[in-house]
Amino acid sequence: MTGRGRLLGKRPSAGILLLAAVLLFPSIAFAGGEDPSVPLLLYLVVILVAAKLMGHLAVVLGQPAVLGELLAGVLLGNLHLAGVHGLEGIATDPGVDLFARIGVVVLLFEVGLESTIRDILRVGLSSFLVAVLGVIAPFALGWLVGAWLVPGHSWQTHAFLGATLCATSVGITARVLQDIGKSRGKEARIILGAAVVDDVLGLIILASISGSIVAAGEGGAPSGIWPQVGITLKAVGFLAGSLLVGTWITPRLFSGAARLRGAGVLIGVSLAFCFLLAHLAGVAGLAPIVGAFAAGLILEPVHFRKFGERNIRHLEEGLRPLVELLAPVFFVQMGAKVELTAFASTGALWLALLLTVAAIAGKQVCSLGVLDRTVNRWAVGVGMIPRGEVGLIFASIGASLVFEGERVIGATTYSAVVIMVVVTTLVTPPLLKAMLADPKPVPPPDGGA
Amino acid sequence: MTGRGRLLGKRPSAGILLLAAVLLFPSIAFAGGEDPSVPLLLYLVVILVAAKLMGHLAVVLGQPAVLGELLAGVLLGNLHLAGVHGLEGIATDPGVDLFARIGVVVLLFEVGLESTIRDILRVGLSSFLVAVLGVIAPFALGWLVGAWLVPGHSWQTHAFLGATLCATSVGITARVLQDIGKSRGKEARIILGAAVVDDVLGLIILASISGSIVAAGEGGAPSGIWPQVGITLKAVGFLAGSLLVGTWITPRLFSGAARLRGAGVLIGVSLAFCFLLAHLAGVAGLAPIVGAFAAGLILEPVHFRKFGERNIRHLEEGLRPLVELLAPVFFVQMGAKVELTAFASTGALWLALLLTVAAIAGKQVCSLGVLDRTVNRWAVGVGMIPRGEVGLIFASIGASLVFEGERVIGATTYSAVVIMVVVTTLVTPPLLKAMLADPKPVPPPDGGA
Repeated sequence: MTGRGRLLGKRPSAGILLLAAVLLFPSIAFAGGEDPSVPLLLYLVVILVAAKLMGHLAVVLGQPAVLGELLAGVLLGNLHLAGVHGLEGIATDPGVDLFARIGVVVLLFEVGLESTIRDILRVGLSSFLVAVLGVIAPFALGWLVGAWLVPGHSWQTHAFLGATLCATSVGITARVLQDIGKSRGKEARIILGAAVVDDVLGLIILASISGSIVAAGEGGAPSGIWPQVGITLKAVGFLAGSLLVGTWITPRLFSGAARLRGAGVLIGVSLAFCFLLAHLAGVAGLAPIVGAFAAGLILEPVHFRKFGERNIRHLEEGLRPLVELLAPVFFVQMGAKVELTAFASTGALWLALLLTVAAIAGKQVCSLGVLDRTVNRWAVGVGMIPRGEVGLIFASIGASLVFEGERVIGATTYSAVVIMVVVTTLVTPPLLKAMLADPKPVPPPDGGA
Repeated sequence: MTGRGRLLGKRPSAGILLLAAVLLFPSIAFAGGEDPSVPLLLYLVVILVAAKLMGHLAVVLGQPAVLGELLAGVLLGNLHLAGVHGLEGIATDPGVDLFARIGVVVLLFEVGLESTIRDILRVGLSSFLVAVLGVIAPFALGWLVGAWLVPGHSWQTHAFLGATLCATSVGITARVLQDIGKSRGKEARIILGAAVVDDVLGLIILASISGSIVAAGEGGAPSGIWPQVGITLKAVGFLAGSLLVGTWITPRLFSGAARLRGAGVLIGVSLAFCFLLAHLAGVAGLAPIVGAFAAGLILEPVHFRKFGERNIRHLEEGLRPLVELLAPVFFVQMGAKVELTAFASTGALWLALLLTVAAIAGKQVCSLGVLDRTVNRWAVGVGMIPRGEVGLIFASIGASLVFEGERVIGATTYSAVVIMVVVTTLVTPPLLKAMLADPKPVPPPDGGA
């Protein structure tokens, strides 16, 4: 307790003890009878309290809160190893799962809102090359690591592993750049531009692979290169089509909606739009997050000008509490699915290690895409390292897909992906600070590991 | 369309047509495969769009938005009568149900936040008498109507019907008083004070009856007056105990939580506190909303002063988007459970009519509790008429309870309660305006019907 007491302030007060005590609640019997929300309510209590406590610890230690939420999940999901039972439902309860799924849809909608279609079309050539190289190299390396270390699985599993390494989570990079006053530098612009393109390319790869698995599961499509090309084109087509149709429809939709009276019209209609595209993506055999992200890309402040003061900034502010309730449910559930016992074998540890190396080394290839010689290329490569939520989301989708009778992402592979996400997130801030706080280019870190 | 076009502005634009077209989506096949969120996403789209469109119509017609949401549900839930299928899930889907249940917990938390324990202890003698009379009279009248018109059912069904008539929903009254500049008058203070006490008494009655049904279902408690007294004492004890313990714990809990860093700590910890009490209420055999309401009563602005600027006003603002997403899910689902075919029999129409008369007449007894002769007593009685969400919540709990093999609140009785809520909400604004806009007391409306 002394460590935590120090981190929290002068004395470990009764309040902290009480807050922590709520975590010791798991053994309460579920006597709630027929109301299915009664156990869910307890899970939500434990998830929220653990997420906020561990998120605090992460922030105090200079890490992003999401890392703490993930580790809170790992702790809660493995409490049974310490003989504490009653919280297994956090990883398996259908109610928690439904909240987590809607949470990740709202989260990707928020991520999409941060960019516009114009942003994507306008990224410079450097950003575009960095993004493409930063997707191809980790995808190939991840696939190779999978083929080498989990040879008994289908190529879909190996490709899925590659896909989890594609999308950059620049939230951490953006905050470090802000901390050291470099958020408006050329490096920052290249990294942020590349990350947006990254997300789109990663989602297309995800859509393509999971589409092929779903089609094979329905016995519809034979395996091979041409069906795969067809499914990829379908994914690209869905994204491009929804962006085109969406861009045409939304101004009309929102100028109509702006006339509606009553509370919460903007947020209600925006969420309905997000949920509609997410649903359509699901119906098309893609992940709902693809549609939610597209919905976020489509919506732009100009659509809301008829709402008067209630513009897109208000929309993002309005979404915050929703994301703050639902996103921790997703991240804690992600963590809870990690089976620590999976690491009893050295094979699993090797997989986690090599996946992490592939993730870091793969993104260093990015730096070749930087055309401007005055830019610190290695800083761009380092800035692209963190994977964060999108990698986790991909892994969780793989864990929910079944191909030829087995999960595409099994317990061991899933846990290895989570380790990779945690490590890439942890190494970025110190490396980036070391490189950019000093204006002279520093020598490249060897091997990237 | 001309009517709607007129209500919405000068011309029925393409936007409105598009917004309405989303409602015609139900026939899309659910091909989402294994992701359980895909159908839920569509239900949420339809619920949000219908709620905002009908809420708008209600507001334009001078009615509260919640009335429009309820009617949107009645329409959606009975579309199958018009041959449109695919939306039956709004009334029956377990995912929608879970979101609605969490929604009503958050809603009652918000209602509780609007009052403090001190408010309840401080209501004047007039408010207290008005509240007590306004609970006893409608409870007794509702029970009698039940015993007369649905004689084949258990006394629990009759008592439950009485309970749905107890709690006043003063939101509508408060807004009418504000509109005519009387929100600081003596009548307003008596009505608002009585409504808070009303909520507490109504929840105790609900807890007592549903507790007795759950206990009987478990074969634990024999029927009779003394076990009922015991269950009532348990409900009172839970409320009093959680208020006492909560008042002692929360200052410590929140002064500890205020030291946590990271986003959304206040809203996360507040929701965790609400969900914890709701869960404990469920475990104790009471409705989770009893705990959520108690949590709202306990939390006071003073607990948040260590959060600096982020005080309780920010908490209520932060809860808004959550309530705006989740509460329409609850109200639309409530409406969707109304079976219009139930009104094919004259017996059901009689039940709806007499229940409404009992609801209105019962609250007129209130006016006897007003001691101050300068107060417009009849206006107090009229101001207490609207039932709104709490009556609906009680009915939905009754519909989910099974006693001796049949639902406590069956399809016909449920639909009659919804009609009663709609009518009491509709009649209040014009009556109240007629009574208070003119400073002279007007003659009482005869019979109250």
